[in-house]
Amino acid sequence: MTGPRYPALIKALPETVPFVGPEVQERAQGFPFKARLGANESMFGPSPFAVAAMQDEIAEIWKYADSAHLDLKGALAARNACTPQNILIGEGIDGLLGYTVRLLVDQGDAVVTSDGAYPTFNYHVAGFGGVLHKVPYKDDREDILALFDKAAEVDAKIVYLANPDNPMGTWYDGKTIEAALDRLPEGCVFALDEAYIEFAPQGTAPKIDPQDPRVLRFRTFSKAYGMAGARIGYVLGAAETIKAFDKIRNHFGMNRPAMAGALAALADDAWLTEVLRLVDAARKDIARIAKDNGLTTLPSATNFVAVDCGQDGDFARKVLAALLAQGIFVRMPFVAPQDRCIRISAGRPEDMALLAEALPKALETARNS
Amino acid sequence: MTGPRYPALIKALPETVPFVGPEVQERAQGFPFKARLGANESMFGPSPFAVAAMQDEIAEIWKYADSAHLDLKGALAARNACTPQNILIGEGIDGLLGYTVRLLVDQGDAVVTSDGAYPTFNYHVAGFGGVLHKVPYKDDREDILALFDKAAEVDAKIVYLANPDNPMGTWYDGKTIEAALDRLPEGCVFALDEAYIEFAPQGTAPKIDPQDPRVLRFRTFSKAYGMAGARIGYVLGAAETIKAFDKIRNHFGMNRPAMAGALAALADDAWLTEVLRLVDAARKDIARIAKDNGLTTLPSATNFVAVDCGQDGDFARKVLAALLAQGIFVRMPFVAPQDRCIRISAGRPEDMALLAEALPKALETARNS
Repeated sequence: MTGPRYPALIKALPETVPFVGPEVQERAQGFPFKARLGANESMFGPSPFAVAAMQDEIAEIWKYADSAHLDLKGALAARNACTPQNILIGEGIDGLLGYTVRLLVDQGDAVVTSDGAYPTFNYHVAGFGGVLHKVPYKDDREDILALFDKAAEVDAKIVYLANPDNPMGTWYDGKTIEAALDRLPEGCVFALDEAYIEFAPQGTAPKIDPQDPRVLRFRTFSKAYGMAGARIGYVLGAAETIKAFDKIRNHFGMNRPAMAGALAALADDAWLTEVLRLVDAARKDIARIAKDNGLTTLPSATNFVAVDCGQDGDFARKVLAALLAQGIFVRMPFVAPQDRCIRISAGRPEDMALLAEALPKALETARNS
Repeated sequence: MTGPRYPALIKALPETVPFVGPEVQERAQGFPFKARLGANESMFGPSPFAVAAMQDEIAEIWKYADSAHLDLKGALAARNACTPQNILIGEGIDGLLGYTVRLLVDQGDAVVTSDGAYPTFNYHVAGFGGVLHKVPYKDDREDILALFDKAAEVDAKIVYLANPDNPMGTWYDGKTIEAALDRLPEGCVFALDEAYIEFAPQGTAPKIDPQDPRVLRFRTFSKAYGMAGARIGYVLGAAETIKAFDKIRNHFGMNRPAMAGALAALADDAWLTEVLRLVDAARKDIARIAKDNGLTTLPSATNFVAVDCGQDGDFARKVLAALLAQGIFVRMPFVAPQDRCIRISAGRPEDMALLAEALPKALETARNS
């Protein structure tokens, strides 16, 4: 009995995953985390109206969700000054990035991203046989003009940028991105990941015609809306491109209560405002805790803060390990010199208190090892 | 400004969807359905324990789900006499079929299915550039030996069979499938879709070594467990093959409350037994209603019944249209001669009463048109 015959592309893929989940780490280390500050989830949770809407909709969970997602598309269209035809709903930005790569990238096609940017995007590019070209960060920011120039140089199908950036929390103002678009080469799609846009200062989101065929913008209910476990993301783009996703997407892939929750969450601006206030307070807490330990932090337009551990990546990895060992789940950038930092999500006061307690010990452990 | 450059495969794909959802139909017709008997959802809903578990877990929806799905895999492994390494969890069977085709099918590779079988499988095969070879049904059943012989003839990567079958509700006993496996050609994976297996008579599920590398079995919480809107399916297969899915799957793609619900649903055998009893009663109702109208039904091992409208496909399509116009959502087979039937899901007594009221009028309309 022989097993499956895999295509060459599949055979060549490594059996690695983009991220090791905190539950997997907890099982490996044999105890649960006390503070979950590593995946930029929102510990403040979703709007109480979203919670109620999801709980109510459980009664309808015997039904598949609307495959056209029209209610949520309508609400998102009203909010984004576009039509429902400019919106694609999908299984989180991760799922939507997968669809996007599949839609655009043939084996051997060039794709451009920053060295150290979102690994799940790279995972999908590799998964469909695209060839990644990486541009270094510049002063801890993704280098938008260098990215676009690289895209022209290698004739890229997609160039990816997160604004605000993950893992550094840095950002461009919208006008800079608008101006940079002139440099985007013909036939290259600009995948603009705005997962953290709600946390950013006014003016961070560029003004782009929803019908601009060059740009796909990725948004999510996983961050500011506190619904990471719901798995709802969306894409804003030209109607013709959005329609093309219908050729490949999992039409009945969405969780029905989650869709009801997203609709309710979108209507509760007061909750969003409160979350942004709490996140800002937590960012200040992280900066203060870092400073109390002689460390500096990067400015952040997200719900996390990059804490500069003041030495090289090996040192930061030791600090990270010592935090994990104390039950504090955090992550860090993969690439130098950004890997001198650890990345800490904005948490509740009790989470921040645990961090304040653990960080000095972690630094001591790292310095003594 | 030019738009995206699509790969040749994507350009060639039609902009069709495997199914038009009932909500889309409702909007098109301008009124809601009174009875939702077209998608083989379980109107009896999930276990009350599953409902409670999902409602409780909404409080944790700010967290991504465990990417390794270990709790649910453990429970499923215990139930299926295998190890967690033999189990893959994914976004419904639809999503899992997509991953499976992607994992195995290169552009131009042959795939075998029955003419008139599950269109979403065909959608995925086309979407990854596979070449479909279709075998006719025989006496309203998928023809397993002919499918395997065709797989040998065309050197197929995958041969698909649903047991019990959708859309006809017919089935093979497990021993027949076990014996047929001798005819499965080397290097061809047998994708055995068991979405409806819980409704089938004892002995319908073949006994297959979980480590048999030739077979992938697809199961779901969407049918007997009443959780179609949760989007949880699973695959049983050899550990080596299951591990290969880690190269391509959306690792953080599952809804967290849904996972908690599936775990609770699996523990409530009393509810499952009750649902099977209610479904069996509804199948008998459908048969009686059909008989009262001079029609016959096919035996069913699923939660739906194929009602033979007694004439050709055109007539059955008229009956279907006349039911839809009365607010009764049903579907029907796509291919002759199976399309002489309409397919009606097992419903609650109130749903069955609506069907009993609407069917005579629908037949009259069809006969007079």
